[in-house]
Amino acid sequence: MPSQNLIATLLLTCPDRRGLVARISNFLFERGGNILDLDEHVDSGEKHFSLRVAWDMAEFTVAPENLHKEFLPMAEEFGAEWSIRLNRTKRRLAIFVSKHDHCLQEILWRSELGEYDAEVALIISNHPDLGPLAERYRIPFHVFPITPETRERHEKQELELLKRERVDTIILARYMQVLSPGFVRQHPHRILNIHHSFLPAFAGGNPYKQAYDRGVKIVGATSHYVTEALDEGPIIEQDIIRISHKDSLNDLIRKGRDLERLVLARAVRLHLEDRVLVHGRKTIVFD
Amino acid sequence: MPSQNLIATLLLTCPDRRGLVARISNFLFERGGNILDLDEHVDSGEKHFSLRVAWDMAEFTVAPENLHKEFLPMAEEFGAEWSIRLNRTKRRLAIFVSKHDHCLQEILWRSELGEYDAEVALIISNHPDLGPLAERYRIPFHVFPITPETRERHEKQELELLKRERVDTIILARYMQVLSPGFVRQHPHRILNIHHSFLPAFAGGNPYKQAYDRGVKIVGATSHYVTEALDEGPIIEQDIIRISHKDSLNDLIRKGRDLERLVLARAVRLHLEDRVLVHGRKTIVFD
Amino acid sequence: MPSQNLIATLLLTCPDRRGLVARISNFLFERGGNILDLDEHVDSGEKHFSLRVAWDMAEFTVAPENLHKEFLPMAEEFGAEWSIRLNRTKRRLAIFVSKHDHCLQEILWRSELGEYDAEVALIISNHPDLGPLAERYRIPFHVFPITPETRERHEKQELELLKRERVDTIILARYMQVLSPGFVRQHPHRILNIHHSFLPAFAGGNPYKQAYDRGVKIVGATSHYVTEALDEGPIIEQDIIRISHKDSLNDLIRKGRDLERLVLARAVRLHLEDRVLVHGRKTIVFD
Amino acid sequence: MPSQNLIATLLLTCPDRRGLVARISNFLFERGGNILDLDEHVDSGEKHFSLRVAWDMAEFTVAPENLHKEFLPMAEEFGAEWSIRLNRTKRRLAIFVSKHDHCLQEILWRSELGEYDAEVALIISNHPDLGPLAERYRIPFHVFPITPETRERHEKQELELLKRERVDTIILARYMQVLSPGFVRQHPHRILNIHHSFLPAFAGGNPYKQAYDRGVKIVGATSHYVTEALDEGPIIEQDIIRISHKDSLNDLIRKGRDLERLVLARAVRLHLEDRVLVHGRKTIVFD
Repeated sequence: MPSQNLIATLLLTCPDRRGLVARISNFLFERGGNILDLDEHVDSGEKHFSLRVAWDMAEFTVAPENLHKEFLPMAEEFGAEWSIRLNRTKRRLAIFVSKHDHCLQEILWRSELGEYDAEVALIISNHPDLGPLAERYRIPFHVFPITPETRERHEKQELELLKRERVDTIILARYMQVLSPGFVRQHPHRILNIHHSFLPAFAGGNPYKQAYDRGVKIVGATSHYVTEALDEGPIIEQDIIRISHKDSLNDLIRKGRDLERLVLARAVRLHLEDRVLVHGRKTIVFD
Repeated sequence: MPSQNLIATLLLTCPDRRGLVARISNFLFERGGNILDLDEHVDSGEKHFSLRVAWDMAEFTVAPENLHKEFLPMAEEFGAEWSIRLNRTKRRLAIFVSKHDHCLQEILWRSELGEYDAEVALIISNHPDLGPLAERYRIPFHVFPITPETRERHEKQELELLKRERVDTIILARYMQVLSPGFVRQHPHRILNIHHSFLPAFAGGNPYKQAYDRGVKIVGATSHYVTEALDEGPIIEQDIIRISHKDSLNDLIRKGRDLERLVLARAVRLHLEDRVLVHGRKTIVFD
Repeated sequence: MPSQNLIATLLLTCPDRRGLVARISNFLFERGGNILDLDEHVDSGEKHFSLRVAWDMAEFTVAPENLHKEFLPMAEEFGAEWSIRLNRTKRRLAIFVSKHDHCLQEILWRSELGEYDAEVALIISNHPDLGPLAERYRIPFHVFPITPETRERHEKQELELLKRERVDTIILARYMQVLSPGFVRQHPHRILNIHHSFLPAFAGGNPYKQAYDRGVKIVGATSHYVTEALDEGPIIEQDIIRISHKDSLNDLIRKGRDLERLVLARAVRLHLEDRVLVHGRKTIVFD
Repeated sequence: MPSQNLIATLLLTCPDRRGLVARISNFLFERGGNILDLDEHVDSGEKHFSLRVAWDMAEFTVAPENLHKEFLPMAEEFGAEWSIRLNRTKRRLAIFVSKHDHCLQEILWRSELGEYDAEVALIISNHPDLGPLAERYRIPFHVFPITPETRERHEKQELELLKRERVDTIILARYMQVLSPGFVRQHPHRILNIHHSFLPAFAGGNPYKQAYDRGVKIVGATSHYVTEALDEGPIIEQDIIRISHKDSLNDLIRKGRDLERLVLARAVRLHLEDRVLVHGRKTIVFD
């Protein structure tokens, strides 16, 4: 369950140098912040520094609205990429779906249960099929029946809708359309996808069919940030399930469903709890 | 532990038709065989029949040396590929290695412990490094320092040695040389390899480096039969282990070692217990 | 997806003797049955025989309604416990719940998706809380607010309701009431429970609290048939998830939810596909 | 592979209060220490603080031999339990065994491979059986054929031997004798055991037999620190493997061996890398 206290979380990544932890922890200490959780990592090869720290704001002497400004000078000195987020500002999510309901169902159910510190603002689909499920959960459902001809126009409408609804994070819950590079660039590291294979194995279409034909003994699912190169984005979470020769292609699809929804749900959680830092093609996951 | 009783195991695969199980179980029953374990499978797509049956030979009325001849007419009628093996004829193994000792160590240790109904006849290497380990276990160790120039001559010598030593199964325990197609053809589905990735991901060289660079959250290992197409043979067994951003390339290699030796050891066991049938590019594993 | 063809499945267990597979497969062959899947096992210690065989009824010469009578003499000769079921008779399920929705949600969702060859006939609860969820899926919802004083009367009403609705299998989906021995005896090996621990560890109440206090590194869930002795029934399926010192008791409960619903869903599937035989305190699971 | 640089690792646990991370990271920064890895955790229930920090000593202004003295005042102020260790002082290990070789083999093999920053000083056994294996690796092997009558005398001799050999950590690698409370008290949180079950399930003798009789679908292994209460010590690591009704008791023992040696090997590694803090009955594992 999300905490009741006001908690701030800093995610930061920069070239390593001596004293970074001391500088940051002093910054917090001097302003009355009590560190609840701190995890840092220096990549032994590239000497790259990454840190996640969460602190209690109860007695912090900087007002929440001034946090960003207060931290900025030090971050610039470090040459850091960074973000600070407060747990009182619920993130707004958009879920993109096509016809499969399992991933959507999973996210809606967890959201309703209070597992995520976020709210589902809207659902977008290229098919009307999942409208009734959206209605069950009383979430606005928008259909954009995208075709190659309408893509440009429809994506423009979608972007406006996302902006109007102040959507922070987009979840592709088995959305069977490729987003255009222009769309992706508007939401850097803010679009999560679930691919139904153990990437980089079986990228592209019909991964279960590919896995069935190859005769693998394990199938997987991969959640990653969407980048302009299809199925190439930084991986957030993966998991697998064992299969055997007794499993038909339909069995793979059925077993894979369980994997897809759990892997996506875990990735969404890690993202929403500010546990994922992107560095190049990879992620650092503070779990 | 291998059983003390004389047990025969039939592996059979053929196009499906009605009555196959009845015919085969009657064949055994009428000759006094007591079925200990029977597993059959009909592929729902291709209608292909596969069966493994093991029976106690204690009161079987056909002498072991006549088993093959007795079963032949029915097998021909079915158009089957098949084999019958008795547990009293220990298979003779050849292990091919280069410089890494972990897979060799694992197979020798299990063999000594009596886990395999087989004996290690000899070890072949392209480097002298693992000679002392072979000596510990008192297994003949042969070095063939293969180079592109000597390959043809050396492989010929190896084949002669394998024949002279009546080797049944070859285990490539992290052998860093590619066998020539001619060599492979001499031992169809009798050469087991361990590849240090979750195939088909990261086929080819340096799979841990590939995995590290891609930022996957899971690494795998795959044991497969060697065919003429590199890393494309029918998969026998796979397994995986979780990794994180904290793991350096060396950590991947270290963690992968544990996986490689266990996956190879399990594949060897399945093969030696006649639990693996090859059908096209895939295996049927009766476990 | 359940098959479209008419398929019969025999589950049988009896003392081992020679020729059982031959007799049974002949029985089917002589009557025109095509075996689709056969798995048998002889317990090496007790010499106990167990078998599951499924066959296509398309050209079977015995009418479905006479199947039982036709097989009876042979089964009696073997001293067998056995059942034959046809896939055209959908089983009727009753789900018992209290306040937690995750297991109910999971079963209803899979049922709606067509994963089970069964229909949910009704939901029984000792609390009104999950009524709205039942309504979403349009399943009759009955509240029996059982107390020690009302148990006897309420259980009698429940049993009548189950009988009237021709319920075949009862699923306790985190039902927080203990059924009386009399109730259990009416449904031998027809009541499935999910216990939120890796039994036999942490039997009884508050298993997550017990696990948290003990400091285990893994938590589990167990689905078993309900017998008169609490948490002692034959285990059908178990699975686990890793935890760490970072996980609070609430995190254990959250992570455990995912485990509970998947383990229960798999056990329900195995049961409904006639893959589970009970032998003494244990199950034989033909999967 | 252990690092070539001189690295110090601090493990510390104390009641939580504001500024602990700042104080400790400043302490290191002011003395020229470059933090390589820092992980801290505050137990949300008990408000207990735990930290592991590793830093490069290359430009540290305090000499290694003065480290302890320098840190002492601050640690006392915090009311902390703590330790600092340098990677140049290889720990000396004693391995206790009986007749099973798999865990011993595993530790010796990894040690030889350089996986552990430690050396095996000696092996102690109550049986002579594993002497030849010790000899292979050229490790002194001492037999103390302990009986109830000789326990007191033999343990005294063992303690003297351990002291004389400056043994830091004791590994019970399937040692089938119970250590006396007096012996255990001499090595608090310095004795690691492997129990061949998923504790707390199947504590005590013959856990595989217990698991087999109960019909569980998963067996486990647990590595824990030895305390005076048998099988009750703080758990360091656990893992599991799936089994089925096809597995005989011997199969459980065979499969369990693989689990035992891997779980013990991982626990030993975590301990030797100073990643394990004991707090009450539990461990905090910084992995």
